Amino acid sequence: MLNIDIVKPTLIIDKAKALANIQHMQAKAAKQGVVFRPHFKTHQSGVVGTWFREMGVKKITVSSVSMASYFADHGWDDILIAFPVNMLEIKDINRLASRIKLQLLLEDETVASRLDELLECMVEVYIKLDVGAHRTGIPMENTSHILGLAATIAKLDKLQLKGLLAHAGHFYHKPDGLIAIQEEVSNISKQLNWLKHKIGDEKLLLSWGDTPSCSMLETLPGFDEWRPGNFVYFDVMQYHIGACQLNDIAVVMACPVVAMHPERNEMVIYGGAVHFSKEFIAADQNFRLYGYVVTFTENGWSDPLGGVYLSNLSQEHGIVKMPADIAQQFKPGDVVGILPIHSCLTVDAIGLQITLHGELVPKISSA
Amino acid sequence: MLNIDIVKPTLIIDKAKALANIQHMQAKAAKQGVVFRPHFKTHQSGVVGTWFREMGVKKITVSSVSMASYFADHGWDDILIAFPVNMLEIKDINRLASRIKLQLLLEDETVASRLDELLECMVEVYIKLDVGAHRTGIPMENTSHILGLAATIAKLDKLQLKGLLAHAGHFYHKPDGLIAIQEEVSNISKQLNWLKHKIGDEKLLLSWGDTPSCSMLETLPGFDEWRPGNFVYFDVMQYHIGACQLNDIAVVMACPVVAMHPERNEMVIYGGAVHFSKEFIAADQNFRLYGYVVTFTENGWSDPLGGVYLSNLSQEHGIVKMPADIAQQFKPGDVVGILPIHSCLTVDAIGLQITLHGELVPKISSA
Repeated sequence: MLNIDIVKPTLIIDKAKALANIQHMQAKAAKQGVVFRPHFKTHQSGVVGTWFREMGVKKITVSSVSMASYFADHGWDDILIAFPVNMLEIKDINRLASRIKLQLLLEDETVASRLDELLECMVEVYIKLDVGAHRTGIPMENTSHILGLAATIAKLDKLQLKGLLAHAGHFYHKPDGLIAIQEEVSNISKQLNWLKHKIGDEKLLLSWGDTPSCSMLETLPGFDEWRPGNFVYFDVMQYHIGACQLNDIAVVMACPVVAMHPERNEMVIYGGAVHFSKEFIAADQNFRLYGYVVTFTENGWSDPLGGVYLSNLSQEHGIVKMPADIAQQFKPGDVVGILPIHSCLTVDAIGLQITLHGELVPKISSA
Repeated sequence: MLNIDIVKPTLIIDKAKALANIQHMQAKAAKQGVVFRPHFKTHQSGVVGTWFREMGVKKITVSSVSMASYFADHGWDDILIAFPVNMLEIKDINRLASRIKLQLLLEDETVASRLDELLECMVEVYIKLDVGAHRTGIPMENTSHILGLAATIAKLDKLQLKGLLAHAGHFYHKPDGLIAIQEEVSNISKQLNWLKHKIGDEKLLLSWGDTPSCSMLETLPGFDEWRPGNFVYFDVMQYHIGACQLNDIAVVMACPVVAMHPERNEMVIYGGAVHFSKEFIAADQNFRLYGYVVTFTENGWSDPLGGVYLSNLSQEHGIVKMPADIAQQFKPGDVVGILPIHSCLTVDAIGLQITLHGELVPKISSA
C-alpha cells in the first residue's frame, strides 16, 4: 500500500525510475558524443529539471515561450524553443533573449526578416525541416527553399544560424519496426548532412528529436544533438511503440474508486479527461484504451492487471473494464493506479503531482 | 479585428451570447415551474457564476468536491456534487457540509452507511439512477436495489433523501433525433415517477440533467429540477447534436498563426491539446474534426469558414486544413479563432480567458 494519503486524482512519480530513465538516455548520448538537450515539455517542472541538472544537463528544449520563461526563472540559461516562432510574443522573446542563450526555430523567410527587425539582441536559430511528420518545417527535399532561407538568415544582423532541426513525429505511427526506422533515420541523416554541406557551414548542428527513435535505436549516426522528452516518464503509448518496457514507466495516476458495477464488469474511478487528457490507443472502432490499471505496493506499483483497462473518460469519471473475479477485489474508497497513455498530456492536465516518497512536484501553471 | 492583444492561445468569451444562453434556459425552466440548478463544471469560474447569480440563480451543480469548495468560497451556499461520493474526501465534505447546504449522490448501500458514520452533520442525498448512459447509477429498472437503498437511507441519521437523479449522457450519441429523445424522456419520467411513488415520499425531487435534452425539448414533463451545464457556452459537439445553432456558441479560442504550408493546404496554429483537450468528432477512420475556424470581426467573430477546419492537435500545435485560395488570406502573425468541439474540456485545459470586452475571466486552478 502506498504511504501517501490519496484523496483525489494524484500523479505519482517514481523518482528512481525517472532518474534511471534520464541516466540511461544521457549515457547513450554521451557515448555517441552528441549534445543532450532534453525536451522539458513532458514534465514542465522546475523540480524535475533539477534531477536533470544534477546529472550534468545544461541545455534544454521547450515548446513555448511561456515554458522558456518558466525554466529561465528556474535557472536554465540555454533554452531552445522547438516551436515555430510566434511573432506575437516578441516582447517575451526579447526579454528572454536579453537574459539567457535563446534558440528559435524558423521555416519562413518573411518571419525571419520580421524577427530580425524586432529583435533587440542576437539569437541563434535552427531551420526546421520536415523529415516526414508533415506537421511543421520545410520538406527536407525542398533544397532551394532551405538554402534560400539559410542565405536570408546569413544576411540578417540579429540571427545566427546554428543548425538544422528535425522531429520525426511520424515514428509514433510507424508499425514497420526497428529496421525500417533505422533505415529511415539513416536516409534522413544523409540528406541533412548533404544540406549542411550545401549551406557550406560545417559547424552547423544537426538536431534530432523524438523519444521512440532515441530509445529504440542504438546509434543515430550523423546527428549532433538529441532532444527526446517523453523518455523521462515514458507511458503506455511508448510501450506500444516499443520504446520502453512497462516497468520503465515512471508515472502513475492514483485514482479513488467511487462505484462498482459488477453487472457490466465495470468500476468507476474519480479520474477523467481533466486529469488524463483524452488521448487513447484505438484498436478498432469499438475499442479504445485510455490506460492500464495497477495496484499499489509498499514501494511502488504492480504490473498492469490482465484484462483490466481504462475504457472511457468523461470530465471527471473514468470507466475501468475488468473481469468479474477481479471486480470482487475492489470497493468504493479503494485507490487504484492508472498508467497513462500519454504522459506529456497527463502531466499538463493534472494539478497534483507527488513522488512515491511524498515530495510535492510543482510545475508550470496551465498555458 | 479583435480589440484585444492576443499573444498566445486565449479563450474569448462572448458575454452577451453567454448571458442570452443563460437567460433562455432559465426562462424555459421558470415556464415549466422547475428548480433550475445549472451545472458549473462547464465554466468553473467565479466570475461567470455571478452572471448566473444576477439572473436569480441560487442553486448550482458541480462535479467535484474541489469545485464545490471553490464555489462555496465564491458565495454559493446550495451546491449539489453530481458525482458518486468519494469517501476519501470526507474531511472536505464535512468542512463543506458545515458551511453550506450540500447535496451528494449515492448509488451504493455500503457507501451510504460509511458516509453516515463519518459525517459530522446532516446532508441531503439523491439516489443516482442509470437511465441509459451506463456510466454511473443504479439501473432504473432495478427496483429492489433502488427501494433497498432508499430504505437504508431512511434509517440513517445524517442522510436525508432529497430526490432521484438522472443524467442521460447517452443523448450525446443518439442519432435518432428529437422525437426518439422526447419519447425516451417520457418513458424515463414515467419510471422515475413510479419509483418515487413506490418509495412513498411525494416530496422527492426528480432531477434531470444534460444540455441536449434541456435545449432541444420544449418540455420535460414529470421532472422537478434541471441541471444542464454546457448550454452557457455550447460548442461544436452541441451544434452537431442539434442542441444549438453555430451562432449560439459563446466561446472561441484565439490562436496565433505560426506557419503556412500551402503545398499541403495547411496552416499551423499555436493552439494544441493542452489548450483544447483532444476531444474530436469522428466522421470516419480518416476524418477527425477538432474545431471550426472563424475570423474575428469588430464585435465578435465570423461564421465558420467553409472547408476550413482544425484537423489535428499535438501538445501545442494545431493543424488547420483549408482550400488553397483561403490559405492565401493568412500569414504567420495573424490570429484566427477556433470554435471548440467540447467547451467544458477546453475551459478546463486553457489558462487564459477573457471576454470580448477585455475583462479577464479567472477560474478554478487545475484539478
